[in-house]
Amino acid sequence: MYYKIGRCCVRCRVVESVGERVEGFAVGDTVVPTFLGQCDSCAGCASAGSNMCSALPFVVGPGMRRDGTTRFRDSQGEPLHDFLAVSSFSQYTVVDVNQVVKVDPAVPPKLACLLGCGAGTGVGAAWRLAKVQPGSSVVIFGLGAVGLSVAQGAKMCGAAKIIGVDLNPDKEELGKKFGVTDFVNPSKLGESPLSQVIIEMTGGGADYCFECIGVASVMTEAFRSAKQGNGKTVILGLEKDGKPISLPSIEFLFGKCVMGSLFGGIKPKTDIPILAKKCMSKELELEKLITHEVGLQEINTAFDLLLQGKSLRCIIWMDKLAA
Amino acid sequence: MYYKIGRCCVRCRVVESVGERVEGFAVGDTVVPTFLGQCDSCAGCASAGSNMCSALPFVVGPGMRRDGTTRFRDSQGEPLHDFLAVSSFSQYTVVDVNQVVKVDPAVPPKLACLLGCGAGTGVGAAWRLAKVQPGSSVVIFGLGAVGLSVAQGAKMCGAAKIIGVDLNPDKEELGKKFGVTDFVNPSKLGESPLSQVIIEMTGGGADYCFECIGVASVMTEAFRSAKQGNGKTVILGLEKDGKPISLPSIEFLFGKCVMGSLFGGIKPKTDIPILAKKCMSKELELEKLITHEVGLQEINTAFDLLLQGKSLRCIIWMDKLAA
Repeated sequence: MYYKIGRCCVRCRVVESVGERVEGFAVGDTVVPTFLGQCDSCAGCASAGSNMCSALPFVVGPGMRRDGTTRFRDSQGEPLHDFLAVSSFSQYTVVDVNQVVKVDPAVPPKLACLLGCGAGTGVGAAWRLAKVQPGSSVVIFGLGAVGLSVAQGAKMCGAAKIIGVDLNPDKEELGKKFGVTDFVNPSKLGESPLSQVIIEMTGGGADYCFECIGVASVMTEAFRSAKQGNGKTVILGLEKDGKPISLPSIEFLFGKCVMGSLFGGIKPKTDIPILAKKCMSKELELEKLITHEVGLQEINTAFDLLLQGKSLRCIIWMDKLAA
Repeated sequence: MYYKIGRCCVRCRVVESVGERVEGFAVGDTVVPTFLGQCDSCAGCASAGSNMCSALPFVVGPGMRRDGTTRFRDSQGEPLHDFLAVSSFSQYTVVDVNQVVKVDPAVPPKLACLLGCGAGTGVGAAWRLAKVQPGSSVVIFGLGAVGLSVAQGAKMCGAAKIIGVDLNPDKEELGKKFGVTDFVNPSKLGESPLSQVIIEMTGGGADYCFECIGVASVMTEAFRSAKQGNGKTVILGLEKDGKPISLPSIEFLFGKCVMGSLFGGIKPKTDIPILAKKCMSKELELEKLITHEVGLQEINTAFDLLLQGKSLRCIIWMDKLAA
């Protein structure tokens, strides 16, 4: 059993048993649980442009989606609540049939688990949400795991120029491994506004700008950096201070667009198996995101590495109690 | 020769002569001049998602697009500048070959002239920019000529519910003529926020929200009224005070999108002839926008009617010096 640590909790593991009336899954299936459901029968799932299942709506909070109950108990028998419907910091869990995706057992678990959240979000944002076109220009604000996954997705879609923007100079070399072709460190620009530099580098503005940090002022700068006509700005970061984004309204009239999504717009059951295949064929090289691997007992070390910015993704092996 | 008055200046008229090296036009052709160019050879024109010609970029200001010169002189021989490249408050004008669209001479001129700006913008925003889907829900904030044209475009695209929002109670009956199925007067809602009322009327948010007024706070409210998953907010109004739009960033993560364009995203040479045919077949009934008709000498009356909110569109007949 395997585990990935990130801001959301996902993993890849094997079905131990199936509940009554569950169809489509059998004991021994290799699966990825997902924080977004896909029932395939509601209006949201039926819509080509949406990945928001209305039968099992996304809720940040405790409880199983269908009935609000929990399947966990602590050592005193008191209820412990689920989180984000997957509750995967555990050797065993119970997941709704609509929140688990079957993948080819040949996909290495430590790769498959990456697809359940951050990497799936980044690749999906380029591929499914923004629909990056071959030969286009892409700017990624923030080269963390999500931003680097956007780079992988943009490369997979055939982008010609992929500009990484990060304050950390180490990200220049790191970015290259993920497909980043050009690098900008905003702290080295002097008086030049970042958007002006991007506009010059792209000959008039980027086709696609991805904000992967979660800072309202960077979202505005991403919007300013996008090309007139049909430049798209994609919001992936969660604004930490809850600030609204302030956008110059007149720029919309010049054909600009701002969009966002959860999970990069991918439909879990439809798209995760496709992405898993792309990982197997090396079209996607997501294993480069894995900087650390630990056993379950070291889960707090994994969190510390993330908080200190020392890891991109840390695999937590559920069947190893120590590294 | 005919003329339409609006915030932009367009008309339908007949080619009197063609310049050297001009191809594709002949004396006697019926044409609609347009404030957006279409050269059909630049990257902008080649892009399916853009109507911003980069060979003749949109400029609010005087002068012919190619060389900044003017073809007008006043009675003392002093230069008078062009405006928005068409300068159509005149019996004769000189227009760039890339800013004039040939239309079927059977299309009544007073219909064709509407397509060159406001009506084309509204219909195009539903049809080309937002790509309204059959059976969908649409909300239009502001039922002026552009908003009513959005209603026509949404109806043409097969929208099931078209909600008009306006402070003027007379717009309820007027809207029905253009396809509006439901009406909301924000001044009659008491304590309920407008977006909450729209969310209830649409069972969770509208598929498409069009802001056709130009007020930043209404743009925000339109965004709040859009459906999670793939609700689109379309900005058509020009913010009068230059205020930025403030948008709750987290709502983007739930799949919302904000877009805008000039001229509703239509490519003039490609789309105006199509819309002209739809006018002929009564698929579009834009003639209902024409509330007044005057001769050229009454041009100031036409402006007054517009400023007083008494007209939707006023045709100015160039060949009539008085009504």
